Amino acid sequence: MAIRIGIAGLGTVGQGVIKAVQSNGQIISQRCGGITVTAVSARDKNKKRGIALGGVKWVDNPLELAADPAVDVVVELIGGASGVAKELALAAIKNGKHFVTANKAMIASSGKELAAAAEEKGVALCFEAAVAGGIPVIKGIKEGLAANEIRSVKGILNGTCNYILTQMEESGRAFAEVLAEAQAKGYAEADPGFDVDGTDTAQKLAILAAIAFGAEPDFESIYTEGIRGITAEDIEYACGLGYRIKLIGAAAKTSKGIEQKVYPAMIPVGDILAAVNDVYNAVTVESLPAGRTFFNGRGAGEGPTASAVVADIIDVACNRAGKPFGVAAASLAKPVAAPMDEIKSSYYLRLAVLDKPGVMADIAGIFRDEKISMRSLLQQGRKPESAVQVVITTHETAEKSMKSALARIGALPTVTEPPHMIRIEQ
Amino acid sequence: MAIRIGIAGLGTVGQGVIKAVQSNGQIISQRCGGITVTAVSARDKNKKRGIALGGVKWVDNPLELAADPAVDVVVELIGGASGVAKELALAAIKNGKHFVTANKAMIASSGKELAAAAEEKGVALCFEAAVAGGIPVIKGIKEGLAANEIRSVKGILNGTCNYILTQMEESGRAFAEVLAEAQAKGYAEADPGFDVDGTDTAQKLAILAAIAFGAEPDFESIYTEGIRGITAEDIEYACGLGYRIKLIGAAAKTSKGIEQKVYPAMIPVGDILAAVNDVYNAVTVESLPAGRTFFNGRGAGEGPTASAVVADIIDVACNRAGKPFGVAAASLAKPVAAPMDEIKSSYYLRLAVLDKPGVMADIAGIFRDEKISMRSLLQQGRKPESAVQVVITTHETAEKSMKSALARIGALPTVTEPPHMIRIEQ
Repeated sequence: MAIRIGIAGLGTVGQGVIKAVQSNGQIISQRCGGITVTAVSARDKNKKRGIALGGVKWVDNPLELAADPAVDVVVELIGGASGVAKELALAAIKNGKHFVTANKAMIASSGKELAAAAEEKGVALCFEAAVAGGIPVIKGIKEGLAANEIRSVKGILNGTCNYILTQMEESGRAFAEVLAEAQAKGYAEADPGFDVDGTDTAQKLAILAAIAFGAEPDFESIYTEGIRGITAEDIEYACGLGYRIKLIGAAAKTSKGIEQKVYPAMIPVGDILAAVNDVYNAVTVESLPAGRTFFNGRGAGEGPTASAVVADIIDVACNRAGKPFGVAAASLAKPVAAPMDEIKSSYYLRLAVLDKPGVMADIAGIFRDEKISMRSLLQQGRKPESAVQVVITTHETAEKSMKSALARIGALPTVTEPPHMIRIEQ
Repeated sequence: MAIRIGIAGLGTVGQGVIKAVQSNGQIISQRCGGITVTAVSARDKNKKRGIALGGVKWVDNPLELAADPAVDVVVELIGGASGVAKELALAAIKNGKHFVTANKAMIASSGKELAAAAEEKGVALCFEAAVAGGIPVIKGIKEGLAANEIRSVKGILNGTCNYILTQMEESGRAFAEVLAEAQAKGYAEADPGFDVDGTDTAQKLAILAAIAFGAEPDFESIYTEGIRGITAEDIEYACGLGYRIKLIGAAAKTSKGIEQKVYPAMIPVGDILAAVNDVYNAVTVESLPAGRTFFNGRGAGEGPTASAVVADIIDVACNRAGKPFGVAAASLAKPVAAPMDEIKSSYYLRLAVLDKPGVMADIAGIFRDEKISMRSLLQQGRKPESAVQVVITTHETAEKSMKSALARIGALPTVTEPPHMIRIEQ
């Protein structure tokens, strides 16, 4: 009575799924009656892969999997927000097949449409692997915390960025140098923008927020800042001030709507998120009445992602997959984006200023005008009439005031570079 | 189409369940069609409780809930390994009712029997609230990591002990003093043994190990040490050596069987478990292919426990509760307990010795005979011919050798108190 799966895409994750199904076959059978890989599809049939595919049907066109009577579940591991992946999803669902995917881009943009189609046909649509593979956080929020009103979800969702920031902290090296090393090791792509500019984190956040708040995944509206601007000095100053810098995806339910943002943040060392290093991912959920729940584990790579994909298949086999987003797709409303200008935060600023009398008075005057309360100010060394670095931290203030202050500070003739700002988490 | 529940026990948790069902009613309805409390039972009907019970039937004998045709799910919040709780479980299941409980003592001792009964009748038996309420860790392991071969489960499972140890660390005070304060604040029971001697942790560990390894819960066979012996000095030395002391429940699959033990351990400060403070609970799971997954949140109290109970009811209402232990109850075999003598660990020893020549040579000689390699040795101050404290840490060695060394060291005339040993985690 094993459930029969067809896998589209035999890259790292596809191979990992086949290995997990084979090596943990007995455990899986005890839990759900077993999984049989009946068909696979990938671009190059002759590529050498470390997996046994004897008895498995090979199809050249992945769309054939959607029509194969020997396939109960189509497992899509091709990727991409649209194109073949989405065609396959729609075709599989239309044909009454369950659909399991690791495709965050597609779920973050077409999640509602696909969920509605799956619900209409009474099939499962599962995507645990789309966010933090080694951590069952979608199930954790959707089912484990189902009784709660979720207030906020915040996480470290991109292993590449976390690896780079951890390495910068440990070695004192610059972003570009550590990125080059990460690329050489295969931890970062040749084109790193998808990771380091925050897009990957934003896609995952859109999915988490949809699950947490019963909203339509709304990737496009997410405020997104990456980590390219973080310097070795920022990391050093952060440590001195008692913080670690992490790229955060954060979503919160506010009276103004749903606030979704991706940004490098200074996290106090005592916060458990600050202890998440290297390629690890983590998610903190604040909910009522459970309080704070924290999930941590490997986010990507062969094993962790395969773990999530196969868990989804087991859920399908046990007939417990349920509604893709926990609530009916039709009820997923486009979230009202809370205006970024109205968020409140504390801030860290790094300024390059000419070391001469009156500069600090100008800056302090701007802060006074914008009603921003300074918490600390530190000038690094003395170089009369040359540029020196000044680091300022503030008490909580409105983003709008800070933006206005930054524009005015940047325009001062004594400020030699655009000011650099990092938000501080409470 | 709301599911109808009958609650036995209206203490803190019972009240929390009713509050959560009421305040999050809309969220719950979207997820599962809603929950209606149709009947309740508690010892004292007239006790003042902060909950509205209008329209809810009151029964004096909780066993009546098992026969009530207006109850689909019996929610048992009475507690106790046997007695009324177990009678109610067996009666409810026999009558084809689903059964949700927070009762760790009962599941740790009768889990297999109850699961077999539930499977036979085709009803659900759910106990997420029995372990670390605010953390959906049973679901996380049973379903979220269902594809994995689990190698080990290790956790901080008792909030009272963790609160006491955290307070001792922060204030430098003695165990007895902090315990008294915890009792005054209601964080510890008047009879604290159940918590501080490790029984509560052992019950929870038995349940986690059963879920993780597909074994029968085997609470009786767990090696259990509590925290009464931990002194302010131990905490101070631990900090100096780079550790935090935590009461740990750890289960691992070894070639010799399943190793289950509860003990105060020194955790390296860099380990994420070391960052778990106060009443928080945490669980680390090592599995293949997911790697390390870490769960953290509030373990007990009204809100977190209610969150788990209501999540279980939602699972029942969504018809996705599945087998109580993830695999058929009949397949849960009594675990072969790995012999404690054969475990390997590093050790911390605190000795009270007379400060006179030759003492260290005696101790070093015993270590040599037992083939134990010392890592560090520190004598606190000098008091010729009086007792001083000596702290020793070792490299990894067999528990058997360490026990033998401890017996011999304790018998030395120059050692004035029984040696105190704490295991060091790698």
